[in-house]
Amino acid sequence: LTWPVFGASEVEPAPNGIRVPEGYQDWRLLSSSYREDNKTLRVILANDEAMEAALAGQTNPWPDGAILGKLVWREARHPQWQAAIIPGELSHIEFMIKDQEKFADTVGWGFARWVGDELKPYGEDQDFAKECVACHMPVKDQDYVFTKLSTLPR
Amino acid sequence: LTWPVFGASEVEPAPNGIRVPEGYQDWRLLSSSYREDNKTLRVILANDEAMEAALAGQTNPWPDGAILGKLVWREARHPQWQAAIIPGELSHIEFMIKDQEKFADTVGWGFARWVGDELKPYGEDQDFAKECVACHMPVKDQDYVFTKLSTLPR
Ligand code: HEC
Ligand code: HEC
Repeated sequence: LTWPVFGASEVEPAPNGIRVPEGYQDWRLLSSSYREDNKTLRVILANDEAMEAALAGQTNPWPDGAILGKLVWREARHPQWQAAIIPGELSHIEFMIKDQEKFADTVGWGFARWVGDELKPYGEDQDFAKECVACHMPVKDQDYVFTKLSTLPR
Repeated sequence: LTWPVFGASEVEPAPNGIRVPEGYQDWRLLSSSYREDNKTLRVILANDEAMEAALAGQTNPWPDGAILGKLVWREARHPQWQAAIIPGELSHIEFMIKDQEKFADTVGWGFARWVGDELKPYGEDQDFAKECVACHMPVKDQDYVFTKLSTLPR
């Protein structure tokens, strides 16, 4: 399984070899969240394979080729509407890429994160994703994904 | 200026005649917000004209044909991560459609809102949008739009 990569010549891959998927900025909306524990706003986008699976209710498990992209910003306040928490600077972008065989060691998902506008790959060594897996354990019964499709009339 | 409409035979137009734009669910991400004052999570999507304008910094004013769609959900808590505020039920969807001539009476934007999954058009009469305009006045110096493009490496 491969996918077109973003800025391939400029952006370093993650320690496990994963590269930033091309065109992730234009993917479709799966959901969003505001995290009170770390004061960040998040939007979760889905590539076409992931979006079609979500719309069809085929997310346990997700199909190989599905990619979920979570974009995370530090909170800021809207200068003209204080009660509105809006995205400030980019914190990080992270992805989960489904491939049962290729990523068998990490519960069937390729995990990768890049930090800040400069897209510094996250992780000390090639086993960094064990940390991602550990935290996603509470949702192992839904294929390790916390996020559900936001309801919208379709 | 016209645009393809969503569920044209089933969804009632707003009192000012505006219809829900077709395919808004697949538009590109402009930004997001969490509103503490009314406990809602919001994602703002942009059609291609609006997105290209935002990427080019041409948002004062926005070009005719730009459409911004704001999708609003009541807050809920993630059952496996209490500190995560996630979208609950749909509250409403609303749009701002730029057309300086057609919508000259309402500061160059066509405003329209539909409430709930059943998409009930909002507004008592054809002047309902004056209420939208009044509240958007704090940002009249940026063409009446609160939302700015969220930074993402592109
Ligand atoms: C300490 C907890 C924690 C760690 C560590 C963690 N995650 Fe998550 N992750 C979450 C929570 C909670 C959510 C859902 C709520 C939200 O949006 O923040 C989530 C959601 C995601 C999503 C959106 C899809 C989904 O499952 O909902 C992606 C993609 C993701 N994480 C990737 C990663 C990657 C890559 C790593 C490691 C580099 C990682 N996560 C490490 C807690 C964690
Ligand atoms: C009482 C205040 C208020 C009223 C009334 C109001 N808005 Fe807004 N609107 C806001 C604020 C504040 C934001 C930006 C923060 C957010 O996302 O909630 C916003 C944002 C929007 C956006 C996203 C683009 C932007 O300007 O940031 C759209 C689209 C929108 N409003 C449409 C409408 C429509 C349509 C109506 C009337 C049916 C309306 N609004 C009435 C306060 C209001």
